[in-house]
Amino acid sequence: MLNAKIVPTNEGLSRRAHQSCGQPISRLMRAALARPELISLAAGFVDQQTLPVEAVQQAAEAVLGDARAARAALQYGTNAGHPALREALLQRFLEADGQPESERDLSLDRVVLTAGSNQLLHLVCETILDPGDMVLCASPTYFVFLGTLKGLGLRAVGVATDEEGIIPEALDEALERHAAAGELHRIKAIYVTTYFDNPSNITLAPSRRQAVVDIARRWSRRERPIYVIEDTAYRELRYEGPDTPSLRSFDPEGKTVIVAQTFSKSFSPGIRIGWGILPESLIAPLCDQKGNIDFGSPNFNQHLMFNVLQQGLYEPHVRRLRDSYRIKLRAMLDAAEQHLSPLPGAQWLEPQGGLYVWLRVPETIDTGPGGCLLERAMDEGVLYVPGEYCYPGEGLLVPKNMIRLSFGVQTPEGISQGIEALGRAIRRTMADPRSS
Amino acid sequence: MLNAKIVPTNEGLSRRAHQSCGQPISRLMRAALARPELISLAAGFVDQQTLPVEAVQQAAEAVLGDARAARAALQYGTNAGHPALREALLQRFLEADGQPESERDLSLDRVVLTAGSNQLLHLVCETILDPGDMVLCASPTYFVFLGTLKGLGLRAVGVATDEEGIIPEALDEALERHAAAGELHRIKAIYVTTYFDNPSNITLAPSRRQAVVDIARRWSRRERPIYVIEDTAYRELRYEGPDTPSLRSFDPEGKTVIVAQTFSKSFSPGIRIGWGILPESLIAPLCDQKGNIDFGSPNFNQHLMFNVLQQGLYEPHVRRLRDSYRIKLRAMLDAAEQHLSPLPGAQWLEPQGGLYVWLRVPETIDTGPGGCLLERAMDEGVLYVPGEYCYPGEGLLVPKNMIRLSFGVQTPEGISQGIEALGRAIRRTMADPRSS
Repeated sequence: MLNAKIVPTNEGLSRRAHQSCGQPISRLMRAALARPELISLAAGFVDQQTLPVEAVQQAAEAVLGDARAARAALQYGTNAGHPALREALLQRFLEADGQPESERDLSLDRVVLTAGSNQLLHLVCETILDPGDMVLCASPTYFVFLGTLKGLGLRAVGVATDEEGIIPEALDEALERHAAAGELHRIKAIYVTTYFDNPSNITLAPSRRQAVVDIARRWSRRERPIYVIEDTAYRELRYEGPDTPSLRSFDPEGKTVIVAQTFSKSFSPGIRIGWGILPESLIAPLCDQKGNIDFGSPNFNQHLMFNVLQQGLYEPHVRRLRDSYRIKLRAMLDAAEQHLSPLPGAQWLEPQGGLYVWLRVPETIDTGPGGCLLERAMDEGVLYVPGEYCYPGEGLLVPKNMIRLSFGVQTPEGISQGIEALGRAIRRTMADPRSS
Repeated sequence: MLNAKIVPTNEGLSRRAHQSCGQPISRLMRAALARPELISLAAGFVDQQTLPVEAVQQAAEAVLGDARAARAALQYGTNAGHPALREALLQRFLEADGQPESERDLSLDRVVLTAGSNQLLHLVCETILDPGDMVLCASPTYFVFLGTLKGLGLRAVGVATDEEGIIPEALDEALERHAAAGELHRIKAIYVTTYFDNPSNITLAPSRRQAVVDIARRWSRRERPIYVIEDTAYRELRYEGPDTPSLRSFDPEGKTVIVAQTFSKSFSPGIRIGWGILPESLIAPLCDQKGNIDFGSPNFNQHLMFNVLQQGLYEPHVRRLRDSYRIKLRAMLDAAEQHLSPLPGAQWLEPQGGLYVWLRVPETIDTGPGGCLLERAMDEGVLYVPGEYCYPGEGLLVPKNMIRLSFGVQTPEGISQGIEALGRAIRRTMADPRSS
């Protein structure tokens, strides 16, 4: 259990600094940088070739071509961000959920722009959680968010999931267990990625969405609400099938669900715009935190992004992106079928979107930095994210035989080669599971 | 005294959220927004007319015109930021200090890019300070930073200044006093704005710079170093006289001084690029904090800014900016001479740069929100920053008769009218200091 009080402070660093050091992602990135010849199926980066150069060019010309608009964009903005963009995002969100009528009273005041959705997640934590507090996380979950929680001295507690996402009964049981232990007051939020979760690529079943909201409400008390943080980062990266209404749409009053969304995956991480829709009571405190942290995200980028939407440059870009990722996903699934399915115990789901394939390998194999496979995979020329990084520190046992594979960055050929290399590494490890 | 432990947590908000609410700047901004007809001499914003539209246009064309460079800019960056920009900033900094030789071993690894220098200040606090720790601040000081400290549950302790900036003997005494009280281990940093301080517009005398570094070193222990945070936000806004070497140049080993610098004042706050030069031991922990907070600042903006520097677009812009602000400063000083100097007790220094005039009014007048002048000034059509916001909560008595006036935003005519209105409000308050 993480407990802020027992972490020593020394060498002139804060407790937070001690809690934040050595995030697994840093180690992986160093490995990738040190050996650029490796095929990385690890990074959740987006495909370099599909980045929206022309769209940004057109938007930049429009914003900078009008001196008055340009000066407005180059000046300070506000903590919450550019109102026109917030309004546009809200309307898009309500339209995607097919519910503009019922939410007519929802205004742009409820929308906050941030430096990617990571910043929104961080700000939400700063605003509602104190060290030692808990977040219940659909397990496995986004490992960068686990690092954020650790850095803040918070406890991440895993809740079981299946092919339909977080299991409402398991969520209810987790709350009951902590209530029985007298810890309910430390649970402040439930974190779920509702579309194409990272790493599992599972979409929370529509039939479970109401239940998740209801459970959070039922265990909330006026003086200590339990929020549901709905991370929708991958919602627009759908390559098959129809979209489904957000978890937020099951919370029409909007007092329970916090939405975290980003343009980093669907447009450009270098422009770095994320945003959230929040309960009214959290807006002012969250903006206060943002004021202290960075005084508002870059206004110029917000004007640029608004222009992208206004000129209709966004939708065609996302369509092209989907076409590209659909092919890459297919390449990864085909390669897995060819090189991994012969391996006994290898297993994966066929996702309809997202950037990941979540692979189970034989139970005898430890995919983590303590096992042999990771070294052997690098030896064969491929890098992956060990599944154990994606599990909260409490609540559930951590399986050691999971792997996160990303198909975002590599070409279809690179993906095939990477999977083939992984297959070789797994076979070598099955033949000799102890030494490398 | 601020103490994190006694602040209650309720309504589902964190301790930090409670500590951060109601920053004075928010109240002032609301007043300004609610009454747009007021001449604001309050905001430290930059002049709208001088924002670098053409320079950003040219840089955007260059970055986006080359598809390969454009894609690199639109992709994720790193927590520390774009290496080319960091290298360019380091070289500029060393050249300005006239010391490239002695610092030849200083590399871009020591430079971190942030969302404005506010984010750097915030990250430094997160990295080295725990709740209840202290920062000694040249008093008066940057009130936004005081808000940051308060939000983090930190103690800001004022140290006396005069026309030459922070007084080394007063700094030494403050350390001695806290050492005698058994609190030395809670002092982690000294904060000074070394050029054209906000609000006092005082530049720390070159003859005092070594002493400040030496005092910090003398009171440091290996296990608890005392850093000097040198805020150089206004260094480039010099309208008269020669530049002077940084405080950092008196710390050639670079283990004591942390530099915080920004392009928000000298180029564009909407592009939002700040940066720091840090002791080696703080780089990794600070980047870990940044990773948790926003995963790196927008890469696109960093490529843009590098291009601005590389194309030689920055220097001509800063020259134009200086010409514009020199006229505005003159307008404010002339108006003060005309409308304020007849008032007994009114007093100000004539600065050589920056964005502020720091005005002392007769002692009978309370310039704060609890006094009559603020309301009357608004009544007469002008808004200012009450001086009391700029004083740390501990260490020194807070004078109630100080005013921060900014000449950045208004035209010379607006400045004149604003000062004239302020003169009227002061005269009305002197005639009737109690009721409004």
